[in-house]
Amino acid sequence: MEEQVEMVGRAFVEHYYHLFDTHRSSLSSLYQQSSMLTFEGQRVHGVDHICFKLNHLPFDKCHHLISTIDTQPSSSSAGGIVVFVSGSIRLAGEEHPLRFSQMFHLMPTLQGSFYVQNDIFRLNYG
Amino acid sequence: MEEQVEMVGRAFVEHYYHLFDTHRSSLSSLYQQSSMLTFEGQRVHGVDHICFKLNHLPFDKCHHLISTIDTQPSSSSAGGIVVFVSGSIRLAGEEHPLRFSQMFHLMPTLQGSFYVQNDIFRLNYG
Repeated sequence: MEEQVEMVGRAFVEHYYHLFDTHRSSLSSLYQQSSMLTFEGQRVHGVDHICFKLNHLPFDKCHHLISTIDTQPSSSSAGGIVVFVSGSIRLAGEEHPLRFSQMFHLMPTLQGSFYVQNDIFRLNYG
Repeated sequence: MEEQVEMVGRAFVEHYYHLFDTHRSSLSSLYQQSSMLTFEGQRVHGVDHICFKLNHLPFDKCHHLISTIDTQPSSSSAGGIVVFVSGSIRLAGEEHPLRFSQMFHLMPTLQGSFYVQNDIFRLNYG
């Protein structure tokens, strides 16, 4: 059970940041109407607003490097998974990568996949 | 609704780190048998093991300083709340505080309070 949770979490993280770095508009496939994003303290609700936000960030090309991935089942019954990521993001034209932490709460879809119910992103200032 | 979630999240954060810094063994009141902690990648399950872990960390006196608190309802039905914290921890005798990020998934108790279902802690190296 724990191994499966970790496998799902790691596969999600790889997929998520690959889409983010190569085809950001496709991230819409990972959110639903009930999804919530808090990006640097700014709250956005629903797949459309979230994808608008993600596609209008003040940087275009970027590359995520993942340092750690921690996963846990979020409750015994509903099948959710919490994923906690730390890493750095390198923006095109910037010399120094920015450290970040991000958490996701994944919930199962009726089709047997997962979507992002909760997404909270923070840059780590030192 | 969102305001209530934020109030609960902020009150929890204040309570949690106050207990951690002044009476760490009392943190047991905030966990249950189903609770999970991942501390710097190490997984611990259940209130007893979690409290043993928290009371045997390689530092004794410490002081948490909170920088940001982000909260979201974790799903529409179950009444859970996800809380994402960033801040720094100053250890007794150490000059430089350590930056950390931590997430909690709070679930309601039958008594109308909340307990920690998920807890993931990471120091931010950078």
